[in-house]
Amino acid sequence: MPRDRHGSFFEDFRLNQVIRHATPRTVTEAEASLYIALTGSRHVPHSALTIARSLGYRNRPLDDFLVFNIAFGKTVAEISLNAVANLGYAELRFIEPVFSGDTLRSESVVIGLKENSSRKTGIVYVRSTCYNQDERPILSWVRWVMVLKRRPQSIVKECYEPEFVSAIPSDELCSPGRFSSKVTLDEWCDATGSRILWNDFAPGERIDHPLGMTIEEADHLCATRLYQNNARVHFDAVEMQRSKIGKRLVYGGHVISICRALTYDGLENVLGVLAINGGQHVSPTVAGDTLYAYSEVIDKWNMPGRSDVGALRLRLVGLKNFIPVDVPSAQSATERGGRRHPAVVLDLDYTVSMPCKWLDGNSIGAHSPVDDVLSADPPVAFPNTGDARRPDLVS
Amino acid sequence: MPRDRHGSFFEDFRLNQVIRHATPRTVTEAEASLYIALTGSRHVPHSALTIARSLGYRNRPLDDFLVFNIAFGKTVAEISLNAVANLGYAELRFIEPVFSGDTLRSESVVIGLKENSSRKTGIVYVRSTCYNQDERPILSWVRWVMVLKRRPQSIVKECYEPEFVSAIPSDELCSPGRFSSKVTLDEWCDATGSRILWNDFAPGERIDHPLGMTIEEADHLCATRLYQNNARVHFDAVEMQRSKIGKRLVYGGHVISICRALTYDGLENVLGVLAINGGQHVSPTVAGDTLYAYSEVIDKWNMPGRSDVGALRLRLVGLKNFIPVDVPSAQSATERGGRRHPAVVLDLDYTVSMPCKWLDGNSIGAHSPVDDVLSADPPVAFPNTGDARRPDLVS
Amino acid sequence: MPRDRHGSFFEDFRLNQVIRHATPRTVTEAEASLYIALTGSRHVPHSALTIARSLGYRNRPLDDFLVFNIAFGKTVAEISLNAVANLGYAELRFIEPVFSGDTLRSESVVIGLKENSSRKTGIVYVRSTCYNQDERPILSWVRWVMVLKRRPQSIVKECYEPEFVSAIPSDELCSPGRFSSKVTLDEWCDATGSRILWNDFAPGERIDHPLGMTIEEADHLCATRLYQNNARVHFDAVEMQRSKIGKRLVYGGHVISICRALTYDGLENVLGVLAINGGQHVSPTVAGDTLYAYSEVIDKWNMPGRSDVGALRLRLVGLKNFIPVDVPSAQSATERGGRRHPAVVLDLDYTVSMPCKWLDGNSIGAHSPVDDVLSADPPVAFPNTGDARRPDLVS
Repeated sequence: MPRDRHGSFFEDFRLNQVIRHATPRTVTEAEASLYIALTGSRHVPHSALTIARSLGYRNRPLDDFLVFNIAFGKTVAEISLNAVANLGYAELRFIEPVFSGDTLRSESVVIGLKENSSRKTGIVYVRSTCYNQDERPILSWVRWVMVLKRRPQSIVKECYEPEFVSAIPSDELCSPGRFSSKVTLDEWCDATGSRILWNDFAPGERIDHPLGMTIEEADHLCATRLYQNNARVHFDAVEMQRSKIGKRLVYGGHVISICRALTYDGLENVLGVLAINGGQHVSPTVAGDTLYAYSEVIDKWNMPGRSDVGALRLRLVGLKNFIPVDVPSAQSATERGGRRHPAVVLDLDYTVSMPCKWLDGNSIGAHSPVDDVLSADPPVAFPNTGDARRPDLVS
Repeated sequence: MPRDRHGSFFEDFRLNQVIRHATPRTVTEAEASLYIALTGSRHVPHSALTIARSLGYRNRPLDDFLVFNIAFGKTVAEISLNAVANLGYAELRFIEPVFSGDTLRSESVVIGLKENSSRKTGIVYVRSTCYNQDERPILSWVRWVMVLKRRPQSIVKECYEPEFVSAIPSDELCSPGRFSSKVTLDEWCDATGSRILWNDFAPGERIDHPLGMTIEEADHLCATRLYQNNARVHFDAVEMQRSKIGKRLVYGGHVISICRALTYDGLENVLGVLAINGGQHVSPTVAGDTLYAYSEVIDKWNMPGRSDVGALRLRLVGLKNFIPVDVPSAQSATERGGRRHPAVVLDLDYTVSMPCKWLDGNSIGAHSPVDDVLSADPPVAFPNTGDARRPDLVS
Repeated sequence: MPRDRHGSFFEDFRLNQVIRHATPRTVTEAEASLYIALTGSRHVPHSALTIARSLGYRNRPLDDFLVFNIAFGKTVAEISLNAVANLGYAELRFIEPVFSGDTLRSESVVIGLKENSSRKTGIVYVRSTCYNQDERPILSWVRWVMVLKRRPQSIVKECYEPEFVSAIPSDELCSPGRFSSKVTLDEWCDATGSRILWNDFAPGERIDHPLGMTIEEADHLCATRLYQNNARVHFDAVEMQRSKIGKRLVYGGHVISICRALTYDGLENVLGVLAINGGQHVSPTVAGDTLYAYSEVIDKWNMPGRSDVGALRLRLVGLKNFIPVDVPSAQSATERGGRRHPAVVLDLDYTVSMPCKWLDGNSIGAHSPVDDVLSADPPVAFPNTGDARRPDLVS
């Protein structure tokens, strides 16, 4: 009995169903280089082996969003081949760094199902986890997609809408590389080209990133194939001519990657991405669009058991064909009348780590707990999450 | 005396002439990753080191068509720089797997020459072999091209038209990776996402592959440069504006690679390509074309001395701008009135290996020799081709 | 105090100012493969590990212009983000080969400043050096750029215009790989496909390279991102629509790389690039342009202490949309009336090494010093530059 090669429809999903996704993938230095070539990423831990080693890594960790895109790509065939829309992300945690030579596979569990009132589509919620060759989880996330029903009249009894935390709590975030001395921090700042550290950012602050990046068809195709994402909407111009937008859509993960690369100018000192608290592809991007980005600091707090680095919760807003200065913050989320600014393509709420200023042989974080800027979201206790979570760090 | 940098003309070729091609090439993990990024390949032995090792390989073998394209690219400067058309392939055998770190070079022997009646062109037949750094052949094939004469009036005495076998006999096919246990097979099927194995295919069966891939100029240029293929027709838009088609042509090997990548959905369990029995680029592909593919099972047989895998002889038909369901099989080869369906760009007859269903501690192939489906082509005896052919497999 | 993320203006530069550039970069086999895919390079030492080892290298050295482009990319953020024009290069020396695994960073010193009479711009001269992870210089060069002033009325007191040597003297050129025997040379010539060696070239000779390469947007974007060059003019189509040319500009280093790759047909036996004596991007290149190239032999001389290889000083002229045969040499530099031929985009004066013909167990270079072709530029004494300069060669 041949499996249906046209993907799953809403009726095919069951609550608690476990889906083991196909095509495990070994990632190498080449994926790291291609990611730089396709996105223009300049974040230092992924670019320079010297710096990665100073931070205690045995090699350059692969860019967090590169890992996400490969992990995500594996889930498309079974989850979203017949998706009308990728509605949102939540509770994404980067659990362990990924290095050249690791082999990644993904698995999903259906955690929610809700038919839409039109009865033509339904919303499928899945929690997906990416595992490495040692079966250790390296990344997990939730997403929900609107999926076509095979037939509007078919009856779907299961209905459950899960709820998600608004931000991953601090004690569930994994520890990033470690700044063991002021020398390491100085070397780091020389490498990033910036001395604006965790201490210098304040909630409410907005950073307009100066660069823009125009997307070509071949760029996003190449990236999406690199991720072995096989969704037709990205690849088949003949089919997409019949769609409302009339063109191939740029894979949302590529939009995230490009916007994130643009943030380098202004957020040079981001050490790693710890979590995506939530995110939405607000409107589609097509080849020819020029992407810009601005960031807002939502919150900041100490990292549990760490005085060398702190956490920043950021909002990354991706814009098409509008420079950030032309898009007021208020409008990005909801314009007057409840509609978003039409330029917004991406609205991502994520948490990063960044080194703190170093004082008296230690970082400022340890000496002046920044209680004034701690929001209600993070937990009050900061237990050390321990080395058990960082098996790939050189001890 | 500078060599002619404008390539060879028909008069320059001699029967039995040996041509050692230039620019040996070391292939690495990066070629494997670029191949995925440029074609969307998802075939598992090239994607996942874990699986490759389970099959007895010391590393991921490079994709068969990647190897072919690099080996082929080397022959262009001396064989087909002045080719009017690449007429066909035959007797292509994949002899040994290629791994990261291997250095490949190609050599050709002129095995046939035939002037055309117009006297403006002639057909050159060459048998080309690709060697690795240990001077072991890893791939050999025959192709014939229509080459311009320098001057119509020049006299060419040599004339010989070689004949080729319609399919490489089974005992000349090399053994692929080995499924040593049911565990390996289960792991494999989890990885490919399909449990449709060799036993499930029947000659005459047709598989319409669901995905389509629109080709961009930058895609095929990048791939063709990766193969160090320097044929002007792919690269020089100014020159090609003066040609009949008016545009740069997509390198035929890229068309094969894209169509082959499309076959993943439906032929997930192909283990490796053993041979190309014959093939033709039926009509040119240019940027902007969307490629689709369907496959027909021509034949199937046991592999000599192997109960874990069997051979499938497949016909891969590449289509441009038509989905497979709109192109009946009969029309692909020859339409009413003897003309092919205009959508057909590629017609390839090739042989692959695929694992068999596993029964009682062994695969079904060993227990039920599928005599009913064996064609006249393969030999009756299946001698074990021995480990001498698989020096790169971990014993 | 946030640094200005919009780059430096003319007023920001000081004579003798040292600028340590950000984002060190580890280069790998993947950069080598991507360079082949993006430029079509076929030069053998970078393509074949077997040949590289025969020449005494421990691995394939990365292509000289790949190294240059990565080293150069690092300097853009601080030097040329607000450059109106990249006016010229001089005194570029390749000091040491770069291998997979090396981490590169760049540093610049301001060596000249001159305000233009319009007072809207000024010329900044910098000497930049690229270092590897052991802090050994691997490449150094001078360039000068026209940079916008923040305000025309601001007063800049410093004014110094440095002068440069017209060609790097022989005793400052670094020794390339070594041909230890006739066997090595034969193997080399088999690999390059040409037996036209150093002895066969004469000053004044011109080589029209046959191939042309049409540039796509995605090609040059991908290359420029690979080099982590973040100049807006290459990436932001919205911004560039407001510019005089109305389009994104192809990064000049990509133009050099493409033209250099085209020279393979005719200069197959170039062993390595030793120096760029001077160079100019004569006019801009945009996507859609087709690049062609011709080379002129300016000069040739023995390499200090080396009888196996000689130096050739070459002029590489890059043309857009005109084949070389249509552009007379005289016109390239200065047409009648003092204007260049409009097709010229690149005029590069550089020095390469090439093996010499081998006679009586040694190369011809040792036996017949080619005094007749030595120009006044190279020094009369040829001291052996010693092994200290070649630490990466296997002894």
